Amino acid sequence: MKGEDLLAYGADLLAYGGIPTFMRQVATRDLEKLDVAVVGIPYDGGATSYRSGARLAPRAIRNVSPLLWGFHREHAIAPLGVLRVGDYGDLHVSPGDASATLETVHQEARTILRAGVQILALGGDHSITLPLLRAYAERYGPLAILHLDAHADTWPGPWDHSSVLRLAREEGLIDPTAWIQVGIRGPLWSEADITTPTRLGAQVWTTGDCHSRGMAAVIAAAREAIGPRPLYLSLDLDAFDPAFAPAVGTPEVGGLTSYQGLQLLRGLKGLRVVGADIVELCPPYDSAEITAILAANLAFEVLALMALAREARSGA
Amino acid sequence: MKGEDLLAYGADLLAYGGIPTFMRQVATRDLEKLDVAVVGIPYDGGATSYRSGARLAPRAIRNVSPLLWGFHREHAIAPLGVLRVGDYGDLHVSPGDASATLETVHQEARTILRAGVQILALGGDHSITLPLLRAYAERYGPLAILHLDAHADTWPGPWDHSSVLRLAREEGLIDPTAWIQVGIRGPLWSEADITTPTRLGAQVWTTGDCHSRGMAAVIAAAREAIGPRPLYLSLDLDAFDPAFAPAVGTPEVGGLTSYQGLQLLRGLKGLRVVGADIVELCPPYDSAEITAILAANLAFEVLALMALAREARSGA
Amino acid sequence: MKGEDLLAYGADLLAYGGIPTFMRQVATRDLEKLDVAVVGIPYDGGATSYRSGARLAPRAIRNVSPLLWGFHREHAIAPLGVLRVGDYGDLHVSPGDASATLETVHQEARTILRAGVQILALGGDHSITLPLLRAYAERYGPLAILHLDAHADTWPGPWDHSSVLRLAREEGLIDPTAWIQVGIRGPLWSEADITTPTRLGAQVWTTGDCHSRGMAAVIAAAREAIGPRPLYLSLDLDAFDPAFAPAVGTPEVGGLTSYQGLQLLRGLKGLRVVGADIVELCPPYDSAEITAILAANLAFEVLALMALAREARSGA
Amino acid sequence: MKGEDLLAYGADLLAYGGIPTFMRQVATRDLEKLDVAVVGIPYDGGATSYRSGARLAPRAIRNVSPLLWGFHREHAIAPLGVLRVGDYGDLHVSPGDASATLETVHQEARTILRAGVQILALGGDHSITLPLLRAYAERYGPLAILHLDAHADTWPGPWDHSSVLRLAREEGLIDPTAWIQVGIRGPLWSEADITTPTRLGAQVWTTGDCHSRGMAAVIAAAREAIGPRPLYLSLDLDAFDPAFAPAVGTPEVGGLTSYQGLQLLRGLKGLRVVGADIVELCPPYDSAEITAILAANLAFEVLALMALAREARSGA
Amino acid sequence: MKGEDLLAYGADLLAYGGIPTFMRQVATRDLEKLDVAVVGIPYDGGATSYRSGARLAPRAIRNVSPLLWGFHREHAIAPLGVLRVGDYGDLHVSPGDASATLETVHQEARTILRAGVQILALGGDHSITLPLLRAYAERYGPLAILHLDAHADTWPGPWDHSSVLRLAREEGLIDPTAWIQVGIRGPLWSEADITTPTRLGAQVWTTGDCHSRGMAAVIAAAREAIGPRPLYLSLDLDAFDPAFAPAVGTPEVGGLTSYQGLQLLRGLKGLRVVGADIVELCPPYDSAEITAILAANLAFEVLALMALAREARSGA
Amino acid sequence: MKGEDLLAYGADLLAYGGIPTFMRQVATRDLEKLDVAVVGIPYDGGATSYRSGARLAPRAIRNVSPLLWGFHREHAIAPLGVLRVGDYGDLHVSPGDASATLETVHQEARTILRAGVQILALGGDHSITLPLLRAYAERYGPLAILHLDAHADTWPGPWDHSSVLRLAREEGLIDPTAWIQVGIRGPLWSEADITTPTRLGAQVWTTGDCHSRGMAAVIAAAREAIGPRPLYLSLDLDAFDPAFAPAVGTPEVGGLTSYQGLQLLRGLKGLRVVGADIVELCPPYDSAEITAILAANLAFEVLALMALAREARSGA
Repeated sequence: MKGEDLLAYGADLLAYGGIPTFMRQVATRDLEKLDVAVVGIPYDGGATSYRSGARLAPRAIRNVSPLLWGFHREHAIAPLGVLRVGDYGDLHVSPGDASATLETVHQEARTILRAGVQILALGGDHSITLPLLRAYAERYGPLAILHLDAHADTWPGPWDHSSVLRLAREEGLIDPTAWIQVGIRGPLWSEADITTPTRLGAQVWTTGDCHSRGMAAVIAAAREAIGPRPLYLSLDLDAFDPAFAPAVGTPEVGGLTSYQGLQLLRGLKGLRVVGADIVELCPPYDSAEITAILAANLAFEVLALMALAREARSGA
Repeated sequence: MKGEDLLAYGADLLAYGGIPTFMRQVATRDLEKLDVAVVGIPYDGGATSYRSGARLAPRAIRNVSPLLWGFHREHAIAPLGVLRVGDYGDLHVSPGDASATLETVHQEARTILRAGVQILALGGDHSITLPLLRAYAERYGPLAILHLDAHADTWPGPWDHSSVLRLAREEGLIDPTAWIQVGIRGPLWSEADITTPTRLGAQVWTTGDCHSRGMAAVIAAAREAIGPRPLYLSLDLDAFDPAFAPAVGTPEVGGLTSYQGLQLLRGLKGLRVVGADIVELCPPYDSAEITAILAANLAFEVLALMALAREARSGA
Repeated sequence: MKGEDLLAYGADLLAYGGIPTFMRQVATRDLEKLDVAVVGIPYDGGATSYRSGARLAPRAIRNVSPLLWGFHREHAIAPLGVLRVGDYGDLHVSPGDASATLETVHQEARTILRAGVQILALGGDHSITLPLLRAYAERYGPLAILHLDAHADTWPGPWDHSSVLRLAREEGLIDPTAWIQVGIRGPLWSEADITTPTRLGAQVWTTGDCHSRGMAAVIAAAREAIGPRPLYLSLDLDAFDPAFAPAVGTPEVGGLTSYQGLQLLRGLKGLRVVGADIVELCPPYDSAEITAILAANLAFEVLALMALAREARSGA
Repeated sequence: MKGEDLLAYGADLLAYGGIPTFMRQVATRDLEKLDVAVVGIPYDGGATSYRSGARLAPRAIRNVSPLLWGFHREHAIAPLGVLRVGDYGDLHVSPGDASATLETVHQEARTILRAGVQILALGGDHSITLPLLRAYAERYGPLAILHLDAHADTWPGPWDHSSVLRLAREEGLIDPTAWIQVGIRGPLWSEADITTPTRLGAQVWTTGDCHSRGMAAVIAAAREAIGPRPLYLSLDLDAFDPAFAPAVGTPEVGGLTSYQGLQLLRGLKGLRVVGADIVELCPPYDSAEITAILAANLAFEVLALMALAREARSGA
Repeated sequence: MKGEDLLAYGADLLAYGGIPTFMRQVATRDLEKLDVAVVGIPYDGGATSYRSGARLAPRAIRNVSPLLWGFHREHAIAPLGVLRVGDYGDLHVSPGDASATLETVHQEARTILRAGVQILALGGDHSITLPLLRAYAERYGPLAILHLDAHADTWPGPWDHSSVLRLAREEGLIDPTAWIQVGIRGPLWSEADITTPTRLGAQVWTTGDCHSRGMAAVIAAAREAIGPRPLYLSLDLDAFDPAFAPAVGTPEVGGLTSYQGLQLLRGLKGLRVVGADIVELCPPYDSAEITAILAANLAFEVLALMALAREARSGA
Repeated sequence: MKGEDLLAYGADLLAYGGIPTFMRQVATRDLEKLDVAVVGIPYDGGATSYRSGARLAPRAIRNVSPLLWGFHREHAIAPLGVLRVGDYGDLHVSPGDASATLETVHQEARTILRAGVQILALGGDHSITLPLLRAYAERYGPLAILHLDAHADTWPGPWDHSSVLRLAREEGLIDPTAWIQVGIRGPLWSEADITTPTRLGAQVWTTGDCHSRGMAAVIAAAREAIGPRPLYLSLDLDAFDPAFAPAVGTPEVGGLTSYQGLQLLRGLKGLRVVGADIVELCPPYDSAEITAILAANLAFEVLALMALAREARSGA
């Protein structure tokens, strides 16, 4: 089947050729054909802190995604051979209308999940995690969350990229016993930015913790907290140092290396990953596409984890 | 039909959303469904003079093509309503193998033309005009050529972007009585760069001519030379001044304005445009996408000319 | 007075030194001290068409504004010597909340105008013209509008940068007998994009008209239509060709030169300019600041027109 | 008081809004109101080695400084609540006249220090450290120096950014028993570049030392050498690897990570920091502002150290 | 001879290959071998107005100079076949020491001229024209000057790029009856910026004059004023609009097109061009090298004029 | 001798001045004068995977090479004082003709080696290693290879940058017992990309291995495998993380730091380095030149190793 579609999009084997669906997978909204729907959410109306521009991120990630080739070295798996992955296109967003966007993303995500298809979402700013978690919680109940980020995203105020995790927690979408934040750092508004996440239940790993204790410790703690729960990965690229991810909405120095991020995700092997988003890529600042390439590689790690989980279930 | 496909690619109405097929048209290789096939030719192996990078041009043009919306103000026509236009994806090229590329582009172009479908090719460097003209000449005989370019492209030597028009002429693919060059300028290797094009039959309009005599004179001369002949448009973006088209393979100062280029193409209304290529966009140098947007607009002008020709035939 | 303030901000005479208030003028909200308030409106929530990023424009324009030095060659006037110009800082905007922004910009603009102070607004995307015109129309009644733009901005739909002029007209903020659009061009959604502006009363000058008939004709027509009416200038940078203004939200090829824009504004000498906005600068795409410098020069032209109007009144 | 000033500059809470004084603090030259004066020194006449452009650095740092919000996570302190920090604007420099600049910077720094106000200087190239140290030594005698840098800056020759530390040492401005260099590396002119700093008394930590022995060792050695002495921090951004600080005057590969720099500064808690400069930011090369953001964060670390020192004194 | 040298530098025929001497000419300081010495003057210590960075210009121009190929279309001449042109390398400058630079450039220029060799200087900022004119005036007496520039460069104050023409005039280096300024425009400090050049004798053509009266009128006036006098061309790239020359030290909107500049220089055919400088290129801002390419083309026009003058003398 | 040549190229001591031969060394093809020939190979016809542009790399590396000054801190050696190093210019390549390029590079490399001169090659894409190894193996027999790279370069298919090491191995140019790959990582086409290199004999160190086991372990293993064999270094810049080397043809996240690369090369002290290439620099993506500067530093490390080897032999 894929060969035929590949022909349709003229892809050949050149990473820079053809119509850039995600990893050259079939573009379809026929959910019966899919196990995983890669969806773009080109919305940056929630990027209130500093830069806008994340609306261009889904296109930027699709453009570089053919560089992912297909076989995962460390896990020795070809995710696209295990899972039927398709490019669902972009969800409907309204650039000037936050509440309409919140609703349409929620509805469309619900539709996908109800069909038994998992979502790998390419943001958009981090605000888009709320409607996704609403749909996920409808299906799975409160979720375990691995939250890679420089910021706790627990600010007060209405729905935007700085309040989104607090809102999700307050709505009961997150299992507070299984909420891990990794990569946290940087100047704050006040001490409340430290106490609030903890009060809400988040287990916080600053980059200082990551550097001093090592990623193995992070992984062990995360695995213990998450256990067999359905796990949602919310991956904000600003968890990485601006050296590795210059093109994010709100850069913070002193961040993770790209390798640390890969280590962390690879360390989640065997956990029950049910969905993920990759957010805050801001392409106008990505002079050599390195942030987009990092985002694409995170997506590939997610697909590998999903494929491993599928194989584990099948093998049982 | 298109609505459904649009759904499939999740495009909505946002210029930055969805999977970027050319102008959001259906991605298909079913030639029965098409009047015009937009094809990418991501080849820069013929860019011997200065910069490489044109391989990335088809993707860059597709990315900005939703900005073309659809209705042409000056011609008062919606080309996509008149013609069935589809995105055929990219033709097969071999980045390290010139002769293989020459052959596959020729064969695939022939296949499209034999189905009665016209080609709007997005290069690639200018060398890709040769295999396209071979296919066109098989179908139409020697063609009238409007050749927008800073350079005559009549250098000696093997097939590349600097010799391509000479080779096409020597192979009899060009009707020497209807070959118009517009935008010619810049330092040369020798006087032969002036005498050769003329000897081969080209009618040469330098940018100096264009500026001093006006585009109306160029248009009148072109229309007279071309007449009812089948017309192929070979549009090298370096015809434009680097101010308007900085991201080209071989920039030359003192070029055309974007408006002059639009004027020229609009002035060809009613001529029998049967095919076109837009070449030499070099995206790594296009810091604000302005060259890609110009390239996309040239493509839109070509589609409008094709639609006008279709309407003229239908109306007859 | 200014000398002292200058000292306070450490500006000296270096264009790159000191704290960048607009043209090194005093930063104040004491309206008694001002004739003209330069205000930033860092809002890009209305930029629905393509790029976001205009939120960074006020800062970018302030940064380059010391390059304006102070004396206007063609008008032989030093606007800052005629008018008391101050930097009012930015108006309050809510990046994720359109209706709140619409309200606060309106209220703050009203406050300024009620104090008898004129506004020179640095956008932001073009949507910010609506709350400004609401405040202006409260004070002056329907205004004459010189609308420099590639787009008519008369699309249907809710308040954003593509519908803003239609809404202003429908609300009666614009005098339909004195609404001049200059720089219009580019692909459209449908023929309605041509008929709607005309139906609403706009006098449309495409760039084609500007190039073929000359700016003197535009100026004459504008002066005749506007006459002694209070005149508001809404200057969208995309009226200029991307060569001259690459860093705009929605670039359109075939636009005006920077010189044509200067000619047009200088041609309005003596008209009763009461306010202005300069919108759609998108700094992330401004690799050599040339669009910001153009924006700053437009601001300087506006100040010169205001100063000339002041001198004319004083001299009467 | 600050609320009122904040209003005056229209800052609100948006990092990209308002007139960019440093961290939105009041712009003033009334030294009675200040404990710390943030001063810009937009001079790059001493950047003889490679790139010029550091003159634009003060503006670039101010522009991103609102991203520092205000509360320091690791030290649990809000420096702006402890210290009265103001933006003093830029010191007077003469771009084409080194000796005049040396004099005016010295004089203006002396004025600030005599008022009992500490200086946080935003360079400019590294040469500006000499006039600052002259003023500091007048007040404090020879200073302990933490010198973060890739280069020893002890070259022979007249005053510029490559000789500045040697000159300061030879003038007796530096306490040779408390001069720590961290981040040193890279190709040299000759072996003298190794022997000279040591001969002059500097304790040299190469990046190799930092990587192999760890920042804790650097911190311990620095604390021991510095003790209770008045400490001046001279922070050259090229101490960081170009990955973390691409936009510096003279990049050297193999440098520190941003986290190592933060670690080092945080490790100085309790020392008696009396002044600092942050130099060699070269904004034209800072495509995603990441070097400017790093520079701003170093400034925030300095303010936190000054605030901690103040609290320690007050608490005693 | 050249073939052998060409081999030495491995240039072949690729514009991007080999060691970039200017136009692949021999690198030599043996003045006996030369008619024209191309010299770099990598000095930006006189760039006091806005951006520094012109020190990188000679290298940037050399890098793109192979694109000049060799044969001039309009003049039908191959300058390198008429004149012995060599790359003399860079003159000695002292980045932190204006007076030393003024002296060494003067001395080295004198040495070249005394050998009967003409200079084509690649700046550097515009200040470098003063030492060059000193050397030229020693040899030729006061010179006719074609001064292409946005700015009159007649500000008061010490030697820098804003005062250089005033100083040259006051020192008697310029023949006041044959000093033509073309491209003048932009905001000024005061009316004196208009009256001073005229008082000093300059014939001023603003860009407004150029656009309205045409370059033919400029050329005619220039030729009449200059006549048979030895003519020095001082070509500041900011005469061009930032669209055509974004990478200059002090951009001014409303400038010349690149074609107008070429027209002007070509119109000087037959005049006695004895020397030239091309200044104010600021490479860090030249994202697609278009300003460097324009600078190189101006250099080629100068060489063509020198060659034509040589042929005229030989033919006499 | 060098002083004289230095004069000839006008270099002085400014890193940005003069004609950029590599490290200001004499440009010569007189092999009698040289111990090491630095050669450019401006070929990117083998860059089939993603980006083209490596053709511009030799020029970019030469441009920044004066920053290498000359004395190596860690080895305490001045390589240019031990070895006679010259800039040989570029080898002959044919941008559109792979087989011709393969032949001419081979022939010219053979000529250099037969003269007893070692080669330090500045690519070009990685394909250029094949003709170099052919020439080296003719002289030395199968070589020990330190292969720094993200990719094994053992893909099937014709000669290009993805197959080059496999071809070299199959041709017997590599000693399979002394082939070390360091930096390997990233998504693969299939498991064969893991098994093939091992089957061919390569000792593979992924970046994961490097990070977890430390560079000392890599160095020890490499030294043991290589022993006294003649050693060729093939240094693909994509071994480094895109943070450190953004401007490469095929970026892979999770790579080495620049310091790790320096460590590795310094650890080879005493081995018999006979040649090296530095490949895959892609300058159009190098916004702050940091990848070019890294490439130049690798070249300097190679020269230091060659000089150390020379000293060791002389000392014996």
